[in-house]
Amino acid sequence: MTKAERTRQFIIEKAAPIFNRKGIAGTSMSDIMEATKLAKGGLYGNFESKEEICLESFKYLTDSLSAEINKSIGDKTTAKEKLFALLDFYENKLFKSNSGGCPILNFGTEADDTNPVMKQKVNEVINRFYTRISNIIKSGHESGELSETLNGTTFAIKMFTMLEGAILVSKVQNDTKHMHTVIEMLKDEIEQYTK
Amino acid sequence: MTKAERTRQFIIEKAAPIFNRKGIAGTSMSDIMEATKLAKGGLYGNFESKEEICLESFKYLTDSLSAEINKSIGDKTTAKEKLFALLDFYENKLFKSNSGGCPILNFGTEADDTNPVMKQKVNEVINRFYTRISNIIKSGHESGELSETLNGTTFAIKMFTMLEGAILVSKVQNDTKHMHTVIEMLKDEIEQYTK
Repeated sequence: MTKAERTRQFIIEKAAPIFNRKGIAGTSMSDIMEATKLAKGGLYGNFESKEEICLESFKYLTDSLSAEINKSIGDKTTAKEKLFALLDFYENKLFKSNSGGCPILNFGTEADDTNPVMKQKVNEVINRFYTRISNIIKSGHESGELSETLNGTTFAIKMFTMLEGAILVSKVQNDTKHMHTVIEMLKDEIEQYTK
Repeated sequence: MTKAERTRQFIIEKAAPIFNRKGIAGTSMSDIMEATKLAKGGLYGNFESKEEICLESFKYLTDSLSAEINKSIGDKTTAKEKLFALLDFYENKLFKSNSGGCPILNFGTEADDTNPVMKQKVNEVINRFYTRISNIIKSGHESGELSETLNGTTFAIKMFTMLEGAILVSKVQNDTKHMHTVIEMLKDEIEQYTK
Protein backbone atom coordinates (compact mmCIF):
# COMPACT_ATOMS: atom_id res chain seq x y z
CA MET A 1 0.00 0.00 0.00
CA THR A 2 1.31 3.44 -0.92
CA LYS A 3 1.04 6.33 1.53
CA ALA A 4 -1.87 7.73 -0.52
CA GLU A 5 -3.68 4.40 -0.36
CA ARG A 6 -3.12 4.20 3.39
CA THR A 7 -4.57 7.70 3.85
CA ARG A 8 -7.61 6.84 1.73
CA GLN A 9 -8.12 3.67 3.77
CA PHE A 10 -7.76 5.60 7.04
CA ILE A 11 -10.38 8.14 5.94
CA ILE A 12 -12.80 5.39 4.88
CA GLU A 13 -12.41 3.51 8.16
CA LYS A 14 -13.17 6.66 10.15
CA ALA A 15 -16.02 7.83 7.91
CA ALA A 16 -17.83 4.50 7.47
CA PRO A 17 -19.34 4.17 10.98
CA ILE A 18 -20.42 7.84 10.87
CA PHE A 19 -22.31 7.35 7.59
CA ASN A 20 -23.83 4.16 8.98
CA ARG A 21 -25.10 5.91 12.12
CA LYS A 22 -26.01 9.38 10.85
CA GLY A 23 -26.96 8.60 7.26
CA ILE A 24 -25.66 9.97 3.98
CA ALA A 25 -27.34 13.40 4.10
CA GLY A 26 -26.81 13.56 7.88
CA THR A 27 -23.02 13.17 7.59
CA SER A 28 -21.08 16.30 6.72
CA MET A 29 -17.50 16.74 5.55
CA SER A 30 -16.98 18.49 8.91
CA ASP A 31 -17.92 15.24 10.69
CA ILE A 32 -15.29 13.40 8.66
CA MET A 33 -12.73 16.17 9.24
CA GLU A 34 -13.34 15.91 12.97
CA ALA A 35 -13.05 12.10 13.01
CA THR A 36 -9.89 12.03 10.89
CA LYS A 37 -8.33 15.25 12.27
CA LEU A 38 -7.68 16.14 8.61
CA ALA A 39 -8.32 19.52 7.05
CA LYS A 40 -10.79 19.86 4.19
CA GLY A 41 -7.90 19.91 1.71
CA GLY A 42 -6.67 16.59 3.12
CA LEU A 43 -10.02 14.98 2.35
CA TYR A 44 -10.46 16.52 -1.10
CA GLY A 45 -6.87 15.62 -1.94
CA ASN A 46 -7.84 11.98 -1.57
CA PHE A 47 -11.49 11.91 -2.66
CA GLU A 48 -13.43 13.92 -5.21
CA SER A 49 -16.54 14.30 -3.10
CA LYS A 50 -18.48 13.22 -0.01
CA GLU A 51 -20.36 10.94 -2.40
CA GLU A 52 -17.14 9.07 -3.24
CA ILE A 53 -16.22 8.63 0.45
CA CYS A 54 -19.77 7.41 1.04
CA LEU A 55 -19.65 4.77 -1.70
CA GLU A 56 -16.27 3.54 -0.46
CA SER A 57 -17.60 3.50 3.11
CA PHE A 58 -20.53 1.30 2.10
CA LYS A 59 -18.14 -1.08 0.34
CA TYR A 60 -15.87 -1.13 3.40
CA LEU A 61 -18.76 -1.83 5.81
CA THR A 62 -20.28 -4.63 3.73
CA ASP A 63 -16.90 -6.20 2.86
CA SER A 64 -16.02 -6.21 6.58
CA LEU A 65 -19.34 -7.81 7.54
CA SER A 66 -18.96 -10.36 4.75
CA ALA A 67 -15.47 -11.28 6.00
CA GLU A 68 -16.79 -11.66 9.54
CA ILE A 69 -19.64 -13.85 8.32
CA ASN A 70 -17.18 -16.00 6.36
CA LYS A 71 -15.16 -16.40 9.55
CA SER A 72 -18.25 -17.32 11.60
CA ILE A 73 -19.44 -19.99 9.19
CA GLY A 74 -16.03 -21.10 7.86
CA ASP A 75 -15.43 -23.79 10.46
CA LYS A 76 -18.97 -25.21 10.24
CA THR A 77 -19.50 -28.35 8.21
CA THR A 78 -23.23 -28.96 7.81
CA ALA A 79 -25.70 -26.65 6.04
CA LYS A 80 -27.75 -26.34 9.22
CA GLU A 81 -24.68 -25.33 11.25
CA LYS A 82 -23.78 -22.73 8.64
CA LEU A 83 -27.27 -21.22 8.55
CA PHE A 84 -27.43 -21.17 12.36
CA ALA A 85 -24.00 -19.51 12.57
CA LEU A 86 -25.16 -16.84 10.14
CA LEU A 87 -28.28 -16.22 12.24
CA ASP A 88 -26.22 -16.06 15.44
CA PHE A 89 -23.95 -13.53 13.75
CA TYR A 90 -26.97 -11.29 13.12
CA GLU A 91 -28.12 -11.61 16.70
CA ASN A 92 -24.77 -11.22 18.44
CA LYS A 93 -22.57 -9.07 16.28
CA LEU A 94 -24.62 -6.52 14.38
CA PHE A 95 -25.86 -4.85 17.58
CA LYS A 96 -22.83 -5.10 19.78
CA SER A 97 -20.55 -3.10 17.53
CA ASN A 98 -22.53 0.12 18.14
CA SER A 99 -21.64 1.19 14.61
CA GLY A 100 -25.18 1.89 13.49
CA GLY A 101 -26.57 -1.54 12.59
CA CYS A 102 -26.89 -3.00 9.10
CA PRO A 103 -25.46 -0.90 6.23
CA ILE A 104 -27.84 -2.52 3.72
CA LEU A 105 -30.80 -1.22 5.74
CA ASN A 106 -29.28 2.20 6.40
CA PHE A 107 -27.87 3.00 2.97
CA GLY A 108 -30.66 1.20 1.07
CA THR A 109 -33.49 3.00 2.83
CA GLU A 110 -31.90 6.39 2.32
CA ALA A 111 -30.77 5.82 -1.27
CA ASP A 112 -33.87 4.18 -2.72
CA ASP A 113 -35.63 7.39 -3.80
CA THR A 114 -32.65 9.72 -4.19
CA ASN A 115 -29.35 8.05 -5.08
CA PRO A 116 -29.34 5.60 -8.03
CA VAL A 117 -25.59 4.84 -7.83
CA MET A 118 -25.72 3.85 -4.16
CA LYS A 119 -29.01 2.03 -4.72
CA GLN A 120 -27.32 -0.18 -7.34
CA LYS A 121 -24.47 -0.99 -4.92
CA VAL A 122 -26.96 -1.96 -2.20
CA ASN A 123 -28.82 -4.14 -4.69
CA GLU A 124 -25.61 -6.02 -5.52
CA VAL A 125 -24.98 -6.73 -1.82
CA ILE A 126 -28.57 -7.97 -1.34
CA ASN A 127 -28.10 -10.33 -4.29
CA ARG A 128 -24.81 -11.60 -2.83
CA PHE A 129 -26.61 -12.35 0.44
CA TYR A 130 -29.36 -14.25 -1.40
CA THR A 131 -26.75 -16.26 -3.30
CA ARG A 132 -24.89 -17.07 -0.08
CA ILE A 133 -28.04 -18.50 1.55
CA SER A 134 -29.29 -20.38 -1.47
CA ASN A 135 -25.83 -21.92 -2.03
CA ILE A 136 -25.75 -23.20 1.56
CA ILE A 137 -29.21 -24.72 1.08
CA LYS A 138 -28.12 -26.23 -2.25
CA SER A 139 -25.14 -27.88 -0.54
CA GLY A 140 -27.57 -29.22 2.09
CA HIS A 141 -29.71 -30.72 -0.66
CA GLU A 142 -26.68 -32.28 -2.34
CA SER A 143 -25.43 -33.87 0.87
CA GLY A 144 -28.95 -35.12 1.63
CA GLU A 145 -28.98 -33.17 4.88
CA LEU A 146 -31.87 -30.84 3.99
CA SER A 147 -35.21 -31.83 2.48
CA GLU A 148 -35.67 -30.90 -1.18
CA THR A 149 -38.94 -29.23 -0.16
CA LEU A 150 -36.91 -26.37 1.36
CA ASN A 151 -36.76 -23.93 -1.55
CA GLY A 152 -33.42 -22.10 -1.42
CA THR A 153 -34.61 -19.06 -3.37
CA THR A 154 -37.73 -18.31 -1.35
CA PHE A 155 -36.12 -19.22 1.97
CA ALA A 156 -33.30 -16.76 1.25
CA ILE A 157 -35.93 -14.04 0.70
CA LYS A 158 -37.74 -14.97 3.91
CA MET A 159 -34.54 -15.02 5.93
CA PHE A 160 -33.20 -11.76 4.57
CA THR A 161 -36.47 -9.80 4.84
CA MET A 162 -37.14 -11.04 8.40
CA LEU A 163 -33.61 -10.22 9.54
CA GLU A 164 -33.63 -6.71 8.05
CA GLY A 165 -37.11 -6.02 9.48
CA ALA A 166 -35.93 -7.32 12.84
CA ILE A 167 -32.92 -4.99 12.79
CA LEU A 168 -35.27 -2.06 12.18
CA VAL A 169 -37.51 -3.06 15.11
CA SER A 170 -34.65 -3.90 17.48
CA LYS A 171 -32.86 -0.63 16.76
CA VAL A 172 -36.04 1.43 17.21
CA GLN A 173 -36.94 -0.43 20.40
CA ASN A 174 -33.38 -0.53 21.78
CA ASP A 175 -34.09 -4.16 22.52
CA THR A 176 -32.97 -7.33 20.74
CA LYS A 177 -36.05 -9.22 21.95
CA HIS A 178 -37.78 -9.25 18.58
CA MET A 179 -34.53 -10.08 16.75
CA HIS A 180 -34.26 -13.08 19.06
CA THR A 181 -37.87 -14.12 18.28
CA VAL A 182 -37.21 -13.87 14.54
CA ILE A 183 -34.04 -15.95 14.79
CA GLU A 184 -35.82 -18.63 16.82
CA MET A 185 -38.58 -18.79 14.17
CA LEU A 186 -36.04 -19.15 11.37
CA LYS A 187 -34.07 -21.83 13.26
CA ASP A 188 -37.30 -23.76 13.94
CA GLU A 189 -38.10 -23.69 10.25
CA ILE A 190 -34.61 -24.90 9.28
CA GLU A 191 -34.93 -27.71 11.85
CA GLN A 192 -38.19 -28.82 10.23
CA TYR A 193 -36.43 -29.31 6.91
CA THR A 194 -33.40 -31.07 8.41
CA LYS A 195 -33.54 -34.83 7.88
CA MET B 1 -60.44 24.48 11.58
CA THR B 2 -59.05 27.98 12.01
CA LYS B 3 -57.03 29.59 9.24
CA ALA B 4 -53.83 28.91 11.23
CA GLU B 5 -54.75 25.24 11.58
CA ARG B 6 -55.49 24.99 7.87
CA THR B 7 -52.09 26.52 7.04
CA ARG B 8 -50.32 24.09 9.39
CA GLN B 9 -52.19 21.20 7.80
CA PHE B 10 -51.32 22.43 4.30
CA ILE B 11 -47.62 22.63 5.19
CA ILE B 12 -47.65 19.14 6.71
CA GLU B 13 -49.37 17.62 3.69
CA LYS B 14 -46.77 19.15 1.37
CA ALA B 15 -43.77 18.35 3.58
CA ALA B 16 -44.67 14.76 4.51
CA PRO B 17 -43.96 13.05 1.16
CA ILE B 18 -40.69 15.01 0.85
CA PHE B 19 -39.46 13.79 4.26
CA ASN B 20 -40.57 10.27 3.34
CA ARG B 21 -38.60 10.28 0.08
CA LYS B 22 -35.53 12.36 0.96
CA GLY B 23 -35.18 11.60 4.66
CA ILE B 24 -35.05 13.91 7.67
CA ALA B 25 -31.52 15.25 7.19
CA GLY B 26 -31.98 15.24 3.41
CA THR B 27 -35.02 17.55 3.56
CA SER B 28 -34.29 21.25 3.94
CA MET B 29 -36.56 24.12 4.87
CA SER B 30 -35.93 25.33 1.29
CA ASP B 31 -37.51 22.11 -0.04
CA ILE B 32 -40.60 22.81 2.08
CA MET B 33 -40.65 26.47 1.05
CA GLU B 34 -40.56 25.39 -2.60
CA ALA B 35 -43.33 22.82 -2.18
CA THR B 36 -45.60 25.17 -0.23
CA LYS B 37 -44.65 28.40 -2.07
CA LEU B 38 -44.35 29.94 1.40
CA ALA B 39 -41.53 32.18 2.58
CA LYS B 40 -39.32 31.10 5.47
CA GLY B 41 -41.30 33.42 7.78
CA GLY B 42 -44.51 31.64 6.74
CA LEU B 43 -43.09 28.31 7.87
CA TYR B 44 -41.56 29.58 11.12
CA GLY B 45 -44.77 31.46 11.90
CA ASN B 46 -46.54 28.10 12.02
CA PHE B 47 -43.85 25.73 13.30
CA GLU B 48 -40.95 26.20 15.68
CA SER B 49 -38.50 24.11 13.68
CA LYS B 50 -37.94 21.63 10.87
CA GLU B 51 -37.99 19.00 13.62
CA GLU B 52 -41.58 19.92 14.51
CA ILE B 53 -42.71 19.75 10.87
CA CYS B 54 -40.97 16.40 10.60
CA LEU B 55 -42.69 14.91 13.66
CA GLU B 56 -46.08 16.13 12.43
CA SER B 57 -45.30 14.75 8.97
CA PHE B 58 -44.58 11.30 10.37
CA LYS B 59 -47.86 11.41 12.31
CA TYR B 60 -49.72 12.52 9.18
CA LEU B 61 -48.18 9.75 7.03
CA THR B 62 -48.85 6.97 9.51
CA ASP B 63 -52.35 8.21 10.40
CA SER B 64 -53.19 8.33 6.68
CA LEU B 65 -51.89 4.80 6.10
CA SER B 66 -53.73 3.56 9.16
CA ALA B 67 -57.00 5.10 7.89
CA GLU B 68 -56.45 3.48 4.48
CA ILE B 69 -55.77 0.11 6.10
CA ASN B 70 -58.94 0.48 8.19
CA LYS B 71 -60.85 1.15 5.00
CA SER B 72 -59.30 -1.86 3.22
CA ILE B 73 -60.11 -4.30 6.00
CA GLY B 74 -63.30 -2.64 7.28
CA ASP B 75 -65.70 -4.51 5.00
CA LYS B 76 -64.03 -7.90 5.57
CA THR B 77 -65.67 -10.30 7.99
CA THR B 78 -63.30 -13.20 8.68
CA ALA B 79 -59.84 -12.96 10.24
CA LYS B 80 -58.28 -14.52 7.15
CA GLU B 81 -59.96 -11.98 4.86
CA LYS B 82 -58.74 -9.15 7.09
CA LEU B 83 -55.14 -10.41 7.14
CA PHE B 84 -55.19 -10.96 3.37
CA ALA B 85 -56.60 -7.45 2.79
CA LEU B 86 -53.81 -6.00 4.94
CA LEU B 87 -51.20 -7.93 2.92
CA ASP B 88 -52.77 -6.82 -0.36
CA PHE B 89 -52.64 -3.24 0.90
CA TYR B 90 -48.88 -3.58 1.38
CA GLU B 91 -48.43 -5.05 -2.09
CA ASN B 92 -50.72 -2.72 -4.02
CA LYS B 93 -50.78 0.60 -2.25
CA LEU B 94 -47.45 1.30 -0.59
CA PHE B 95 -45.58 1.25 -3.90
CA LYS B 96 -48.07 2.83 -6.22
CA SER B 97 -48.30 6.12 -4.34
CA ASN B 98 -44.71 7.04 -5.24
CA SER B 99 -44.49 8.87 -1.93
CA GLY B 100 -41.34 7.14 -0.73
CA GLY B 101 -42.57 3.82 0.66
CA CYS B 102 -43.15 2.99 4.31
CA PRO B 103 -42.64 5.84 6.81
CA ILE B 104 -41.86 3.38 9.61
CA LEU B 105 -38.90 2.07 7.61
CA ASN B 106 -37.74 5.51 6.43
CA PHE B 107 -38.06 7.48 9.66
CA GLY B 108 -37.15 4.53 11.92
CA THR B 109 -33.93 3.69 10.08
CA GLU B 110 -32.78 7.30 10.07
CA ALA B 111 -33.83 8.13 13.65
CA ASP B 112 -32.59 5.03 15.46
CA ASP B 113 -29.08 6.30 16.21
CA THR B 114 -29.67 10.04 16.15
CA ASN B 115 -33.18 11.18 17.09
CA PRO B 116 -34.70 9.77 20.31
CA VAL B 117 -37.98 11.74 20.02
CA MET B 118 -38.73 10.46 16.52
CA LYS B 119 -37.52 6.99 17.47
CA GLN B 120 -40.12 6.85 20.25
CA LYS B 121 -42.89 7.89 17.82
CA VAL B 122 -41.85 5.15 15.37
CA ASN B 123 -41.81 2.62 18.20
CA GLU B 124 -45.40 3.53 19.12
CA VAL B 125 -46.53 2.96 15.52
CA ILE B 126 -44.76 -0.42 15.36
CA ASN B 127 -46.53 -1.44 18.55
CA ARG B 128 -49.89 -0.34 17.12
CA PHE B 129 -49.23 -2.51 14.05
CA TYR B 130 -48.41 -5.52 16.24
CA THR B 131 -51.60 -4.97 18.25
CA ARG B 132 -53.66 -4.70 15.08
CA ILE B 133 -52.41 -8.07 13.79
CA SER B 134 -52.61 -9.90 17.08
CA ASN B 135 -56.17 -8.61 17.65
CA ILE B 136 -57.26 -9.94 14.25
CA ILE B 137 -55.72 -13.32 15.09
CA LYS B 138 -57.38 -13.26 18.53
CA SER B 139 -60.78 -12.66 16.89
CA GLY B 140 -60.02 -15.60 14.58
CA HIS B 141 -59.31 -17.80 17.59
CA GLU B 142 -62.51 -16.67 19.30
CA SER B 143 -64.66 -17.37 16.24
CA GLY B 144 -62.97 -20.76 15.84
CA GLU B 145 -61.77 -19.78 12.37
CA LEU B 146 -58.04 -19.92 13.11
CA SER B 147 -56.17 -22.71 14.88
CA GLU B 148 -55.03 -21.87 18.43
CA THR B 149 -51.55 -23.00 17.36
CA LEU B 150 -51.17 -19.75 15.38
CA ASN B 151 -49.49 -17.51 17.96
CA GLY B 152 -50.73 -13.94 17.45
CA THR B 153 -47.70 -12.30 19.05
CA THR B 154 -45.00 -14.12 17.12
CA PHE B 155 -46.95 -14.11 13.85
CA ALA B 156 -47.33 -10.32 14.13
CA ILE B 157 -43.54 -10.06 14.46
CA LYS B 158 -42.98 -12.36 11.49
CA MET B 159 -45.48 -10.49 9.35
CA PHE B 160 -44.19 -7.04 10.20
CA THR B 161 -40.49 -7.86 9.84
CA MET B 162 -40.99 -9.68 6.50
CA LEU B 163 -43.10 -6.83 5.10
CA GLU B 164 -40.63 -4.12 6.12
CA GLY B 165 -37.68 -6.14 4.81
CA ALA B 166 -39.60 -6.72 1.58
CA ILE B 167 -40.23 -2.99 1.19
CA LEU B 168 -36.49 -2.37 1.54
CA VAL B 169 -35.67 -4.98 -1.12
CA SER B 170 -38.45 -3.96 -3.51
CA LYS B 171 -37.53 -0.28 -3.29
CA VAL B 172 -33.83 -0.98 -3.84
CA GLN B 173 -34.59 -3.35 -6.73
CA ASN B 174 -37.34 -1.19 -8.26
CA ASP B 175 -39.32 -4.39 -8.48
CA THR B 176 -42.18 -5.72 -6.39
CA LYS B 177 -41.25 -9.33 -7.19
CA HIS B 178 -39.83 -10.09 -3.75
CA MET B 179 -42.68 -8.27 -2.01
CA HIS B 180 -45.02 -10.56 -3.93
CA THR B 181 -43.04 -13.64 -2.85
CA VAL B 182 -43.15 -12.53 0.79
CA ILE B 183 -46.91 -11.95 0.64
CA GLU B 184 -47.50 -15.36 -0.94
CA MET B 185 -45.46 -17.00 1.85
CA LEU B 186 -47.44 -15.19 4.55
CA LYS B 187 -50.78 -16.04 2.90
CA ASP B 188 -49.77 -19.71 2.63
CA GLU B 189 -48.94 -19.75 6.32
CA ILE B 190 -52.27 -18.13 7.26
CA GLU B 191 -54.06 -20.72 5.07
CA GLN B 192 -52.33 -23.51 6.97
CA TYR B 193 -53.79 -22.25 10.25
CA THR B 194 -57.29 -21.69 8.84
CA LYS B 195 -59.69 -24.45 9.84
